[in-house]
Amino acid sequence: MDEIKIKNLSVINNEKGDLLKGFLKSENKAIDVNEVYFTEINPYEIKAWKRHKTMTCNLIAVRGKIKIVIQKKDKNYLTEILSKDNYKMITIPPNFWFGFQCITEEIGLLVNISNEEHNDDEAEQIDINELMFDWN
Amino acid sequence: MDEIKIKNLSVINNEKGDLLKGFLKSENKAIDVNEVYFTEINPYEIKAWKRHKTMTCNLIAVRGKIKIVIQKKDKNYLTEILSKDNYKMITIPPNFWFGFQCITEEIGLLVNISNEEHNDDEAEQIDINELMFDWN
Repeated sequence: MDEIKIKNLSVINNEKGDLLKGFLKSENKAIDVNEVYFTEINPYEIKAWKRHKTMTCNLIAVRGKIKIVIQKKDKNYLTEILSKDNYKMITIPPNFWFGFQCITEEIGLLVNISNEEHNDDEAEQIDINELMFDWN
Repeated sequence: MDEIKIKNLSVINNEKGDLLKGFLKSENKAIDVNEVYFTEINPYEIKAWKRHKTMTCNLIAVRGKIKIVIQKKDKNYLTEILSKDNYKMITIPPNFWFGFQCITEEIGLLVNISNEEHNDDEAEQIDINELMFDWN
């Protein structure tokens, strides 16, 4: 698996609180889940850029509105606004630079369901200015 | 594994947004993750009672303040208030009745990292009044 994938997820409405579907092994047979963690992004902040050598990230926004930006192989950028109203999982294979931004006044919360446990040696980071992308 | 377990999790502070650690396979070797889903609980609402025949639930509160109530084998109740300030994962093996309540004005969000995909035949539900627990 070496392509970025975007998959629609379901929200099941419930008057006591909605249920947001997420990762299902049967729909993601290639992924053995080894870590699940949660990243908050404070209002209007940007976390960029990161690239993994071996980790595949499966990202779901469960709070707020988060712009995901991924540098594609052709060096153009794929952007997607994730939120409960546009509820999706983005799969980012290794070797793509990506970043994300909280684009509302509400704190954003991004879930990463990944095939590897986090390891600093495996993740590269560069300064936001090292890739030319207009975040505004 | 047939006992309820409560495990402390780490919050890594970051000025752009904190990182909340969650499930690590190396620390939960008995659990193969087959589904990850998210349950919102609206302010002060209660979702109870549910019991699984085969699913083990691993619950983490990533937003708000959520009271988890589990009926133990001795019929007494274990309660725990989960929040980012008391950041933990509760493992509930099959065959325990449990429920949860959002106890603040902020919507609660509970993550379930489970060893099985959801299946209606596997989950039992009874009315809140069928077990004698004082939620107030």
